[in-house]
Amino acid sequence: MARSGRLSSPGDQRESGRQQILDVIRGAESIARIDIAKATGVSPATVTSITAELLAAGLIEEVAPETSAEMRRGRPRVALRIRGAAHRIAGLKVSHHVISTVITDFVGQELANHEMPLIKGSMPVPELCAQIRRALEFTCKKGGFTIDDLSGIGIGMAGMVDAQRSFIYWSSSLEARNVDLGAALAEVLPCPVFLDNDANLVAKAEHLFGEGRTCDNFIAITIEHGVGMGIVIDGQIYRGIRGCGAELGHTKVQLEGALCQCGQRGCLEAYVGDYALLREANISSGNERHSSVAALFQAAEHGDTMARSILDRARRMFALGLANVVNIFDPSKIILAGARLSFDHLYSDQLIAEMRQWVVQVDAPLPEVIVHDWGDLMWAKGAAAYAIEEVTARTVKELAYAAA
Amino acid sequence: MARSGRLSSPGDQRESGRQQILDVIRGAESIARIDIAKATGVSPATVTSITAELLAAGLIEEVAPETSAEMRRGRPRVALRIRGAAHRIAGLKVSHHVISTVITDFVGQELANHEMPLIKGSMPVPELCAQIRRALEFTCKKGGFTIDDLSGIGIGMAGMVDAQRSFIYWSSSLEARNVDLGAALAEVLPCPVFLDNDANLVAKAEHLFGEGRTCDNFIAITIEHGVGMGIVIDGQIYRGIRGCGAELGHTKVQLEGALCQCGQRGCLEAYVGDYALLREANISSGNERHSSVAALFQAAEHGDTMARSILDRARRMFALGLANVVNIFDPSKIILAGARLSFDHLYSDQLIAEMRQWVVQVDAPLPEVIVHDWGDLMWAKGAAAYAIEEVTARTVKELAYAAA
Repeated sequence: MARSGRLSSPGDQRESGRQQILDVIRGAESIARIDIAKATGVSPATVTSITAELLAAGLIEEVAPETSAEMRRGRPRVALRIRGAAHRIAGLKVSHHVISTVITDFVGQELANHEMPLIKGSMPVPELCAQIRRALEFTCKKGGFTIDDLSGIGIGMAGMVDAQRSFIYWSSSLEARNVDLGAALAEVLPCPVFLDNDANLVAKAEHLFGEGRTCDNFIAITIEHGVGMGIVIDGQIYRGIRGCGAELGHTKVQLEGALCQCGQRGCLEAYVGDYALLREANISSGNERHSSVAALFQAAEHGDTMARSILDRARRMFALGLANVVNIFDPSKIILAGARLSFDHLYSDQLIAEMRQWVVQVDAPLPEVIVHDWGDLMWAKGAAAYAIEEVTARTVKELAYAAA
Repeated sequence: MARSGRLSSPGDQRESGRQQILDVIRGAESIARIDIAKATGVSPATVTSITAELLAAGLIEEVAPETSAEMRRGRPRVALRIRGAAHRIAGLKVSHHVISTVITDFVGQELANHEMPLIKGSMPVPELCAQIRRALEFTCKKGGFTIDDLSGIGIGMAGMVDAQRSFIYWSSSLEARNVDLGAALAEVLPCPVFLDNDANLVAKAEHLFGEGRTCDNFIAITIEHGVGMGIVIDGQIYRGIRGCGAELGHTKVQLEGALCQCGQRGCLEAYVGDYALLREANISSGNERHSSVAALFQAAEHGDTMARSILDRARRMFALGLANVVNIFDPSKIILAGARLSFDHLYSDQLIAEMRQWVVQVDAPLPEVIVHDWGDLMWAKGAAAYAIEEVTARTVKELAYAAA
């Protein structure tokens, strides 16, 4: 029954104490020291000394006691909260046609945003770095500050991203494969950059501000050009060992099935992605070409049987994919997240009925399926939230080891 | 950015401290108090007082200092270890044809084992309870003690099990659905019973004694009558919200595909399970009936093209299922666990080559796929390990709240 006990150094211990205290302060919005001690189990004396250090570092600030019940009972207590002005943080979503940027303070309050159109979807590395810098400069200017005022930048991209190394195995935004984009961006940006797969950042945004707020175990699914998935387990994004997990769009739903843009056959994406629908539509309908999924959807609504058949199969395949997610994760909810338009042709009561039919049958309620309609700026906000977490973790580490 | 900080009571804190210290002792086999303090970050004084309490409760014992380097350097230190005699724990695997039982001490050392054949696979609840009690009595007798000497019993069964409630939504071992088997067993057994899905217990056994020993993120896959999966994330079994996750065998690999024993169509199991192969074999070959997968495998080896075709498709579908697991979890390894016979017809270099072809392509090594050949007693040992953990957790909770 041997199992390695994880040894942790005194520095690790101090780091985890500080992180825990900051998490509680962030979670509570504002909270008295004694309540921090209760919430963390750290002794009041230690809470006092650590919060003194966090105050000195400017990460938190004191809030004047409220003129409320507390006061009237004659024991006003100074509360602590995260200091918004501590850091300015940027979040970006790089998609094919636009870079969406949001700048927030350290609390997560939005200071500025901007959507910068892109002419090309796929770029060489230096060009993408330049475009990202341009998007940041624009947005900072709108907010009345400069790029040098930023403390951290979170960036979400489609593709296979190893978040831990800020390394891109493959992204549709980049011409090259295997790019150390973190290093390339470090050359043109003045502060730390944190890269992640965009669907993971959607899941993070849902967890922090969206439909996943009250929920520590859920799955976010996005449909844009492809199908993305973000997995939240016990409040954490699950990324896999190489950062290549959660590739729902490329799970196979048919042996030797339809050709996918990834070059393989039978991927879920090859049945429900935009390109898959348009490919089928334009082969089926001869000269009469459908230029968008919206047009195809409209044709189906107007009784076009071929369009109807194409969308029906896509919906059934999507229901099958959702059922597989339930059969594997048994999550408390599934959030279909993104611009409403991307789901309209797939989402219906029929989808849920079909999914239900393909889930292992137990006499317990199915996970909720929620459609959460939002635009790219929400994804960018997820990227900012990720950067806030990472900047916090780095600062805490510095403080913990400085205190050694 | 509001996010609820989890409040924990002083009792919870004491509980987690005791659990952490016991985990470190169990992990280290034997360890001095000062090293426990280093490993946990708990102060030496608190370690001394908690270990005194664990000693008094009989959960741990002192080990005489070794006559080794320590001694010669003139500072012999008394080490602590888990006290094997503290508890006798049983683990059972209930399958269709046999109940496999193992009894271990509190360290996990095997004291006795027994395999009791079953005449019926599916039973009414009282009959299954009686058979489980019989299997336990037999095994205890072999070990020279009685069922009343047991402190906890872990039981693994195929099906949909809510481990937290010891509740069976459905199992092929039970005629009824939705059975509170924990309550039924409590009527006939003298100590706490902990139920789980058998594939979860295989994953636990792999983590504690098998191929998952050095690994905190892996997937165990079993093939018997059906296809099972145990998911280990950060060293913990992932069960899903209702306890209905990890149902790989019922993920759909084809829309409206082959009929599964669950009543749905297109499940992976309906292509690779024993019954699926024999169904196809006996339709294809007319009068010449194949009575087992082993016979079918032999026919294929001897050049029977129909048998070859059936097994080829099963292998390809299994490779597709494994590729889907990699695409979703990106685990550090996949362990195909169980009696070798169950995999022989599926496992080959070709399987790995096909899986590789269906995994999202990144320039990073694929997870290892390991075949771990073992019998039902290893599953039973996983069940015992689960019971050891649960008995430990209960005892710790009692101690923590008694110390309040």
